[in-house]
Amino acid sequence: MKKIISKLSSLILRTPLIPFNLPDLMLASNIYLKPENLQIFGSYKIRGIVSVLQESDLDSLQSGLSAASAGNMAQAIAFSAQQLKIPCRIYVPESAPQTKMLAIQKLGAEIIQLPYADIWKIVRGDIELPTDRMFIHPAFNTSLLKGYSIIAHEIIEEMPDVDAIVIPFGVGGLSLGVGHAIHQLNPHIAIYTCEPETASPLKTSLQLNKPSSVQRIPSFVDAIGTPEVLPQVFHQLAAIVKDSLVISLNDIKQALKHLYFNNKLVCEGAAACSLAAAMQLAKLGKYQKIVCILSGGNIDTNVFKESIL
Amino acid sequence: MKKIISKLSSLILRTPLIPFNLPDLMLASNIYLKPENLQIFGSYKIRGIVSVLQESDLDSLQSGLSAASAGNMAQAIAFSAQQLKIPCRIYVPESAPQTKMLAIQKLGAEIIQLPYADIWKIVRGDIELPTDRMFIHPAFNTSLLKGYSIIAHEIIEEMPDVDAIVIPFGVGGLSLGVGHAIHQLNPHIAIYTCEPETASPLKTSLQLNKPSSVQRIPSFVDAIGTPEVLPQVFHQLAAIVKDSLVISLNDIKQALKHLYFNNKLVCEGAAACSLAAAMQLAKLGKYQKIVCILSGGNIDTNVFKESIL
Repeated sequence: MKKIISKLSSLILRTPLIPFNLPDLMLASNIYLKPENLQIFGSYKIRGIVSVLQESDLDSLQSGLSAASAGNMAQAIAFSAQQLKIPCRIYVPESAPQTKMLAIQKLGAEIIQLPYADIWKIVRGDIELPTDRMFIHPAFNTSLLKGYSIIAHEIIEEMPDVDAIVIPFGVGGLSLGVGHAIHQLNPHIAIYTCEPETASPLKTSLQLNKPSSVQRIPSFVDAIGTPEVLPQVFHQLAAIVKDSLVISLNDIKQALKHLYFNNKLVCEGAAACSLAAAMQLAKLGKYQKIVCILSGGNIDTNVFKESIL
Repeated sequence: MKKIISKLSSLILRTPLIPFNLPDLMLASNIYLKPENLQIFGSYKIRGIVSVLQESDLDSLQSGLSAASAGNMAQAIAFSAQQLKIPCRIYVPESAPQTKMLAIQKLGAEIIQLPYADIWKIVRGDIELPTDRMFIHPAFNTSLLKGYSIIAHEIIEEMPDVDAIVIPFGVGGLSLGVGHAIHQLNPHIAIYTCEPETASPLKTSLQLNKPSSVQRIPSFVDAIGTPEVLPQVFHQLAAIVKDSLVISLNDIKQALKHLYFNNKLVCEGAAACSLAAAMQLAKLGKYQKIVCILSGGNIDTNVFKESIL
């Protein structure tokens, strides 16, 4: 089992920082991309899962893993469990596309379909889950967040003079993992999160200075854009995040196009949201070097094709 | 001028080696991608141009640059000349798509359109060019090849135990630059080139053991697939290349699809040809670790969309 975990760990890519090639700004450009879409299964999640596996005792792993997700997390966990030959259960929103469900099923995971609201209740801790599988919470599992924090270390190692960092905000795992590490490494770096206009509870929470919920409109930006900010997440983020930038779906599509044409990267909405936010920041002229985290690349092919028209 | 050259040099990306994420072979996979499509203007060419600029005396640069190309080389040179505020002339095949011509023109370069056969005559040295601009030959300029050779150094540094390397073969610049460096660093590494079935003169030349030409069928794989191998190129490559793998257009399209779905990379035909060749090699089971160079990502958007259907 240790050998397989070490093998899984070897699949994690140390992603480079890539200059954003916007031709008009070329040499003046100060945006850098951290392309986590290049990770196996197309997102940063594998970094967290491997960290959880490394820090769990092997006996407790035998009973298997569980998670609530329709997307990036589900595939990374299901794959890891498959390789470890342990059971895996995924709570999936009924709205998840059939292709994603099939992908998870193909990796041998048990799927439990629930209404989106119930999935969110699981994340809030309002539904008690069977304890036969170790549940990996997307924002509260410290080992998971430790795995994500490596992204911060890689950024600072490669670019110690970075001024600002943009992190896509969903449930808060990536924001907390990367945000805390950045803040610890250099508290002068401005930390921003980003959210789509269709659901931006962190922006609202920061404005009201309390954890808040919003009316969430489902959109193609499905890896971020949640209905609310969990209180524990809010209090930690409020202390380190400068602002949460709210991005229009139109700007997100433009960013998808830039990523395709100028940087040859296939990204999902959350990642493009991060670039669009960085472009907003760049216009302020306040920061020399901005890094935006391209969290993933799992986009519906039809949406992708439309966006690169 | 020196400052601008140094700035241009800072735009070159040290590309990572990325495991090819073919889900079925996942943990057994032994193919690694060198994604040069992530470079500025979507190809490895910038590495060569910057090397030429660094090794030229500044007075001789003042008169400007010229090159024969419709694609990757043209944009990288035109951009460099624009930044240096020196003239630039590009000999472009009449068959080149209007969008590419516009892109080159937008970068301020003078365009001279010629039939494809005449472009090839320039490459062969059969047409005398005006000497008012420094002509950068795609395969004979040693500074250019030195720039390309860095790719080999990066690969060996990151993966000293690589067994085989696949290089897309066009005129021969990349094959010579990378091939010679690999051979010098470790003569035990098997060096393969790849070509599309529509034009594979190196394969024919190796079989006949003399530089040969073939009937070239134009295809979407436009960055490689030339009508002949220049004698000087042939004699140097024959000494170090194990074989040139000929890949069907169908296999190239399959590889484009894999690169999109599994690795979130936008690649052009030449790069996908390289992956398809690596997959052929992997099936032989002879090599533990194969690196294929993804030479570029400048693909016609309609071709790309069709290939990811």
